[in-house]
Amino acid sequence: MGLTVAEKIIKAHLVDGKMEKNAEIAIKIDQTLTQDATGTMAYLQFESMGLDRVKTEVSVSYVDHNTLQEDWKNMDDHRYLQSVAARYGIWFSRPGNGICHQVHLERFGLPGKTLLGSDSHTPTGGGLGMLAIGAGGLDVAVAMGGGAFHLIMPKIVGVKLTGRLKGAASAKDIILELLRRETVKGGVGNIYEYFGEGVASLQVTQRATICNMGAELGATTSLFPSDEKTKAFLEMRGRGNQWVSLQADPDASYDRIIEINLEELKPMIAQPHSPDNVVPVAQIAGLPVDQVVIGSCTNSSLEDLAAVASLVKGKVIDPRVSAGIAPGSRTTLLAAEKAGILGELIRAGFRILESACGPCIGMGFAPKSGGVSVRSFNRNFEGRSGTADAKVYLSSPETAAAAALTGCITDPNQFKMEKSNLDRYLAEGIAIAGDGMLIPPLPLKEAQEVVIERGPNIKPCPRPEPIANSVRLPVLLKTGDNISTDDIMPAGAKVLPLRSNIPEISKYVFTRLDPEFWKRAQEAGSCVIVGGSNYGQGSSREHAALAPMYLGVKAVLVKSFARIHKANLINYGILPLVFSNPEDYEQVDPKDELELNNIYAFLESGESELLINNRTKQKVIKVKLDVDERSRRILRAGGLVPYTKAGGK
Amino acid sequence: MGLTVAEKIIKAHLVDGKMEKNAEIAIKIDQTLTQDATGTMAYLQFESMGLDRVKTEVSVSYVDHNTLQEDWKNMDDHRYLQSVAARYGIWFSRPGNGICHQVHLERFGLPGKTLLGSDSHTPTGGGLGMLAIGAGGLDVAVAMGGGAFHLIMPKIVGVKLTGRLKGAASAKDIILELLRRETVKGGVGNIYEYFGEGVASLQVTQRATICNMGAELGATTSLFPSDEKTKAFLEMRGRGNQWVSLQADPDASYDRIIEINLEELKPMIAQPHSPDNVVPVAQIAGLPVDQVVIGSCTNSSLEDLAAVASLVKGKVIDPRVSAGIAPGSRTTLLAAEKAGILGELIRAGFRILESACGPCIGMGFAPKSGGVSVRSFNRNFEGRSGTADAKVYLSSPETAAAAALTGCITDPNQFKMEKSNLDRYLAEGIAIAGDGMLIPPLPLKEAQEVVIERGPNIKPCPRPEPIANSVRLPVLLKTGDNISTDDIMPAGAKVLPLRSNIPEISKYVFTRLDPEFWKRAQEAGSCVIVGGSNYGQGSSREHAALAPMYLGVKAVLVKSFARIHKANLINYGILPLVFSNPEDYEQVDPKDELELNNIYAFLESGESELLINNRTKQKVIKVKLDVDERSRRILRAGGLVPYTKAGGK
Repeated sequence: MGLTVAEKIIKAHLVDGKMEKNAEIAIKIDQTLTQDATGTMAYLQFESMGLDRVKTEVSVSYVDHNTLQEDWKNMDDHRYLQSVAARYGIWFSRPGNGICHQVHLERFGLPGKTLLGSDSHTPTGGGLGMLAIGAGGLDVAVAMGGGAFHLIMPKIVGVKLTGRLKGAASAKDIILELLRRETVKGGVGNIYEYFGEGVASLQVTQRATICNMGAELGATTSLFPSDEKTKAFLEMRGRGNQWVSLQADPDASYDRIIEINLEELKPMIAQPHSPDNVVPVAQIAGLPVDQVVIGSCTNSSLEDLAAVASLVKGKVIDPRVSAGIAPGSRTTLLAAEKAGILGELIRAGFRILESACGPCIGMGFAPKSGGVSVRSFNRNFEGRSGTADAKVYLSSPETAAAAALTGCITDPNQFKMEKSNLDRYLAEGIAIAGDGMLIPPLPLKEAQEVVIERGPNIKPCPRPEPIANSVRLPVLLKTGDNISTDDIMPAGAKVLPLRSNIPEISKYVFTRLDPEFWKRAQEAGSCVIVGGSNYGQGSSREHAALAPMYLGVKAVLVKSFARIHKANLINYGILPLVFSNPEDYEQVDPKDELELNNIYAFLESGESELLINNRTKQKVIKVKLDVDERSRRILRAGGLVPYTKAGGK
Repeated sequence: MGLTVAEKIIKAHLVDGKMEKNAEIAIKIDQTLTQDATGTMAYLQFESMGLDRVKTEVSVSYVDHNTLQEDWKNMDDHRYLQSVAARYGIWFSRPGNGICHQVHLERFGLPGKTLLGSDSHTPTGGGLGMLAIGAGGLDVAVAMGGGAFHLIMPKIVGVKLTGRLKGAASAKDIILELLRRETVKGGVGNIYEYFGEGVASLQVTQRATICNMGAELGATTSLFPSDEKTKAFLEMRGRGNQWVSLQADPDASYDRIIEINLEELKPMIAQPHSPDNVVPVAQIAGLPVDQVVIGSCTNSSLEDLAAVASLVKGKVIDPRVSAGIAPGSRTTLLAAEKAGILGELIRAGFRILESACGPCIGMGFAPKSGGVSVRSFNRNFEGRSGTADAKVYLSSPETAAAAALTGCITDPNQFKMEKSNLDRYLAEGIAIAGDGMLIPPLPLKEAQEVVIERGPNIKPCPRPEPIANSVRLPVLLKTGDNISTDDIMPAGAKVLPLRSNIPEISKYVFTRLDPEFWKRAQEAGSCVIVGGSNYGQGSSREHAALAPMYLGVKAVLVKSFARIHKANLINYGILPLVFSNPEDYEQVDPKDELELNNIYAFLESGESELLINNRTKQKVIKVKLDVDERSRRILRAGGLVPYTKAGGK
């Protein structure tokens, strides 16, 4: 039987297990990426492995999160990362060089390769036909050391695109439409693979937008075939010789097929506070807007900037709107400057923000209190903008630009788009930024002499303490559905600079839900968290497991988990338990005491169900541990680090 | 007898007093400017005056300090300022439009006019031959209401420039040399007026750099004559018809003359932690540098950017150095983009920061811990960068750029400067940014209908409580010399967003010297601060008087004061006392209790000396109140607001 593109890549990289539905598999990782907010911990873990150099084909350390530099902590992190990269044969992308996913797409991404990244939007690389997966930093550290990446063989969902986009409809509208249909938990355990005649009409950067925001489906990853458009993208960046064709076999089969007719697609918008709360823009047109931001790893390519420029050219932004734009990379910035796009954006009144994640992770450009902000980003969780009561809408750059011009939510089809400009901009090819902002690995000899710089913000990564065989754990917090890693471990300008310092950052765990949580957890010594469905959605941040581990969280009991967070919990020795009967969620309340007995035997037995005794309510609850055999061994060992140290693979 | 330029402008604006040495005078103010960090309080004060519209020729409200927007507070301030400007006939310069002094120079500054600004670097306008003075926000509010500005007639110090700058020596080196000679307290009570054949060789932007950093001398202001260069500057910006010639009379006399031979001037650099700690660059060449930043109101003109571009063109910044550049205004940014300068800076590896004060006030781009940062700024007070133990050096843009290329402090004469480029860039004239970022005043009718937006960060300005007639005040803090307003009321990313909220910001008063000061002050109820010489140097921030007032500081007793801070203390009803015998500074220790008796009679009497009883030491100390009659009446009334409400002028 024929294979899909995803299956072809997995097959070529399979090092353990069988490529069968629901099977435990392990794949070889060709490339890794980290960003600074997850990177410092990942490299501290990598250092502790005692290796002399990374074993991947390409590993890149990006700085794109902590670039505001309000005090010494950010630059201390940058210097640590720069020196670690120099020491271990890793590329280093300096602060200001751009957003990891955009830069990686432009400089390193290749069809048919595997990429593991310590950022949930790593699937952006799928736009080039690579299998690009987001994971916790520890998983990435293991991959840098040559270890395989373990996962359950995902379902392959085929997304068939027919027709061509019309008018101001864009790639972003395709993924918003998919989110509307599938919801933020619809993609757990899936790879979304795009096919059909509509694919050929999409540029690689458009495909990257779609794969990028596939993360919001909860998917393992998303990807496109590699075709002439892929070749053109690589050629334009001087990498045409690295292109390979990669297509699904004609008789490939998908677990499920979704069809989207591009001809019929209208501009879409996600309303507060979830990326799947999607409606057509026209439906809410006229709503006054205070702020517009264009950028982020989702929509900050040269094509995105050019589309905005062609829409705003010769016009001026409404005085009620504060508008910002952040090019995705310096290569994009330079190309935009050379093509005159940058000038048009400035002349229209856009504030030019640095090439970094910035406002998308609450690092600056927060809206006013209660403000409405339209953003070309991927997430609009409550408070993520830096303003607790702001209302963030997610749209295409075109829709955001239209709102900037009119001062209210507006269908961009209302404006004339001079799409032809785009080709003129791109005709000359894109000069790769050669400004020293992307530093290549040193030769081994030189690398071995590098001294790693450890400023006072770089604290060692705490080690998990294995769970006892039988425990009584108080329920310290009970949450609702769709709790994001932003809820568990916030980002933003105040908290992000503490990413290299677990004792400090742990004081912000669950701070939006309960500012006293960290104190109560420390007093309790050990505890359990109870949650609803899709617990841990959003960012890949392993700190959402690491900091709770530090505070003594031993188990998390929920209706269902998001993929990366569940893996992170396992890596840090926290039991990820699921209610066998979701209605039992009602049988547990905050302050209840839950008793777990004979945990070791349970983990070793391979049994999937465990009985928990709610001592407070005098009720027995059935829970599941839905993980593979290796994860059970990791949990038994108390986490991935002790597991690996004991010789586990 | 002939008049100097300064005297001509003062004479033309004199509304009270005689233009004689040390006389109390009052002058009419033609133009005002505010920035956001001082502006919110200034406009709250202005609103309380109950006027319908400003009475100045031009008033401009700039936003350049709080532009990071880490949470809702910044944008709430922006919206308040934008709506107040619309309501009262004030120009509004939106965040991102640039640094107030650069924008004001380009768009509003005029020879022969008076400008009062709530920022200590307002004297930048002196580069155009205007009398531009920094003051507290309350003084600016009074000026907007049509009130005169009161001051003691300054001494006029003539600075005679001979010859022409050679090689990489720049305007910044002139003012650094002057700071070396005069020190940070040498200019108190002075106006520095430049004359001599060397003047004609300097562009207006170079003159502006010199006048700008004249603030660091503690001077009242600095200024240049208005000549053909002034005309050319205005013409290039479409304002040639507003030019007037303004020269000192041939027989004008100066209180003192300083001569600087430009031919002999070498690149200079101010070492940590004072702008007057100046040595030739060559003397410390080779010192490793971690960071370079070019920008700020001192050195961010198109000419500055062009000079840097001509130095770095075709080269790449040293990988050990993190380099940033912030154009002074959007007009500069646009011109730099059009002229290709921006592209050259990006290609060399500069991070392009927003057109704002940014790193100069600790808003981002902080160095690593213990890092060395070379900056084209005006102040290098300890901790101001956001990193307490950073070592900040102040230099010209050329010297900073040379350090960026080599990774260590370097005489820029080592590089070939293609100065001829500059003229080519400027030949076409500079298009004024018409991007809607500078919003003109509304017509009266429309203005009266504007509703002012008051987000939750906008708190009313607290009112001073007049000092009692006789008091016993504990000495809550004793400081050394040269305490800056940064020491009294820090800026930076954490504190600046609280500028509109005195109860909150007061918790940071003296926080670097004593984090518990605010608590101790609140417990004490009322208190006195003891300090050394040049107390209150640096930024004009009135919060350094307003927040201590809120905490109950009733008097400040020092060896000498910086001008603006002293005026701010008076405006908020705090007694600015000076030791009659500076050695008595040794007779007062922290926790001593000082007794002041019959204060009202003393203020009313006009006597300059008062006896204070140090009850703890059982010693009597003689102190001076060296202020004009009007200030005594203001102090008697308990501050400028109650004084004005009671009909005082």
